[in-house]
Amino acid sequence: MTKTRLEAFSDGVIAIIITIMVLELRPPHGSDWAAIKPIVLPFLSYALSFLLVAIYWGNHHHLLHTVSHVNSRIIWANTHLLFWLSLIPFATNWAGENHFGTVSVAVYAGLQAMCGIAYYILLRMIVASQSLRPGLQETLEKQTRRGTTSLIIYLVAIPSAFIHPAISAGLFVLVAIIWLIPDRNIEKALKE
Amino acid sequence: MTKTRLEAFSDGVIAIIITIMVLELRPPHGSDWAAIKPIVLPFLSYALSFLLVAIYWGNHHHLLHTVSHVNSRIIWANTHLLFWLSLIPFATNWAGENHFGTVSVAVYAGLQAMCGIAYYILLRMIVASQSLRPGLQETLEKQTRRGTTSLIIYLVAIPSAFIHPAISAGLFVLVAIIWLIPDRNIEKALKE
Amino acid sequence: MTKTRLEAFSDGVIAIIITIMVLELRPPHGSDWAAIKPIVLPFLSYALSFLLVAIYWGNHHHLLHTVSHVNSRIIWANTHLLFWLSLIPFATNWAGENHFGTVSVAVYAGLQAMCGIAYYILLRMIVASQSLRPGLQETLEKQTRRGTTSLIIYLVAIPSAFIHPAISAGLFVLVAIIWLIPDRNIEKALKE
Amino acid sequence: MTKTRLEAFSDGVIAIIITIMVLELRPPHGSDWAAIKPIVLPFLSYALSFLLVAIYWGNHHHLLHTVSHVNSRIIWANTHLLFWLSLIPFATNWAGENHFGTVSVAVYAGLQAMCGIAYYILLRMIVASQSLRPGLQETLEKQTRRGTTSLIIYLVAIPSAFIHPAISAGLFVLVAIIWLIPDRNIEKALKE
Repeated sequence: MTKTRLEAFSDGVIAIIITIMVLELRPPHGSDWAAIKPIVLPFLSYALSFLLVAIYWGNHHHLLHTVSHVNSRIIWANTHLLFWLSLIPFATNWAGENHFGTVSVAVYAGLQAMCGIAYYILLRMIVASQSLRPGLQETLEKQTRRGTTSLIIYLVAIPSAFIHPAISAGLFVLVAIIWLIPDRNIEKALKE
Repeated sequence: MTKTRLEAFSDGVIAIIITIMVLELRPPHGSDWAAIKPIVLPFLSYALSFLLVAIYWGNHHHLLHTVSHVNSRIIWANTHLLFWLSLIPFATNWAGENHFGTVSVAVYAGLQAMCGIAYYILLRMIVASQSLRPGLQETLEKQTRRGTTSLIIYLVAIPSAFIHPAISAGLFVLVAIIWLIPDRNIEKALKE
Repeated sequence: MTKTRLEAFSDGVIAIIITIMVLELRPPHGSDWAAIKPIVLPFLSYALSFLLVAIYWGNHHHLLHTVSHVNSRIIWANTHLLFWLSLIPFATNWAGENHFGTVSVAVYAGLQAMCGIAYYILLRMIVASQSLRPGLQETLEKQTRRGTTSLIIYLVAIPSAFIHPAISAGLFVLVAIIWLIPDRNIEKALKE
Repeated sequence: MTKTRLEAFSDGVIAIIITIMVLELRPPHGSDWAAIKPIVLPFLSYALSFLLVAIYWGNHHHLLHTVSHVNSRIIWANTHLLFWLSLIPFATNWAGENHFGTVSVAVYAGLQAMCGIAYYILLRMIVASQSLRPGLQETLEKQTRRGTTSLIIYLVAIPSAFIHPAISAGLFVLVAIIWLIPDRNIEKALKE
């Protein structure tokens, strides 16, 4: 019961985060091809954030699948994660509107790092709750390994923005690729 | 379990897409009848997009009904579809604000074509998953047939916008009509 | 199954409609008491619309409770209702920003009348589907009686706005009162 | 059934309230460190409101857990609560944009007091419904005690804003701390 409502609330918040970002994609004022140019970077930052938030949704989905019972600490760790995720539309909008300006890209990387840390805290709280469903230990290990890698990349992306924002942008894409590589083991664990 | 959460998340995203479009309908500045004129085209584009997104919701609903078990590929094909759908408020707003200007209408047609392609990919992933519920093969065939027709119409609507945007607008309405024609067979299949 | 997802989708859309209206309540630019004056009318129109949409949610909830099985016609009648409801934030915003100007209030009344008609169509489709749960005939009759009264009041409120918008505003409040009067019979029917 | 849909609707509205506040966090126009300064106060008011709304969600969750059956009065008391909660994005935005100006902070405190009163009314309606699940009396007593304390603090925070808004801000943080202190008894009651 409690778990279902936690999932429903998280799904609601993540669905809203992923969708309201489009409100910040302002339509160009003309309607010829030249009008499209100024929205290319906002569009790319929108697509990147959509992908990264969608990856969080998928991971969150799998993570909660491993737990049989939620407690207060899990609820608060989840709320903490949702807080940082909820700032992604803001950071996306800033980076897009400022054409990937140095500070905005560094802030974006820092925010993604905070999301990663919050996710890791939630994962630890779930492990500590000792109410894991059998056979899903593996999912947690995979998520920890990939999550740690992503976090390191995001932390590297913060100073990288001051060399050139494009390096950070490349690192964000790298994180997305790491998560998109199919992992048959996770699916197998879920099937059992 | 997994399927329920996928449906809930998709419903959330589609409900938000269909509703936030209204935020872009700016109220006129006066309050006499003349003030209504500049919002006629934005209103029509809103109504059209509402209808097309609602058709996607209905189809998506029926499509997921046919599947008994979801896998990673279905989840990603679904996310891919939601991505293109999420851009509809942007394209609607652009077309409405620019009074159906050539490029904005062509982009709208192109976006609808991308949604159609993404839907088709999702449909193929579901067929490939070989976890179809019996008796629902027919639903898939109907959706494939109508979906292909819609896609062709959208692809025709892209160059048509350069002759006259009204031709494209007429083609969008045609797609809506194709989907609204009742299909007793689908309902029969669902009842069984 | 189908019914649950229809309810979930409708709940999502109505929850978004009722909540995004607040985005149109622009904060005053100063922070002294004088700054509050220009937001009194937008606030009142927000409160009224919130109440009217909440009444729709409650009625919709009770109405779908009476049905055991949904068909295509019910789904489309429901989508049609959601379309008109989704325009309430727009009309609320217009009336609020224009200080209840004549045309904006008439449009608001007209929109509420359209919502009433759409609700009535949905109710008729449900009756026609002949899949009512026993003992709930009474709920439908009550909703038909009150719904018809509301519709007449809204239709009267359209020309009334041209005499004085305050008359229409009073009529809107009257509709809310009609629905808020507790009806023990409905609850009894639901309990059984 | 009825209870599930009430929870789903409330979750939807609260999820939207907590998320759309971020739309009011306008990205700075530059992308150097100086650009970050004007968004510090809006960010802090966003974080505070996010936390306070999240606390409401948790409490609401626990409160509805105690009830086995909902009636009309509970539904309306819940809608009344959602109404005041829905205004939090507006008040947050006002306080943030006006750099915690006197009146905006007093209005924020007054709104939080209204939310507290509305929550208390809902709690009383649930007690009066006499359909409590056994062993959860304690949850209600805890929520009443903490809720009363919070309400008094908010009422004190209204005049405090006229001495210095920072005092009120400190009081808001105090309320958050009161609710965040873990309460093992509530969890124990829920486990049983």
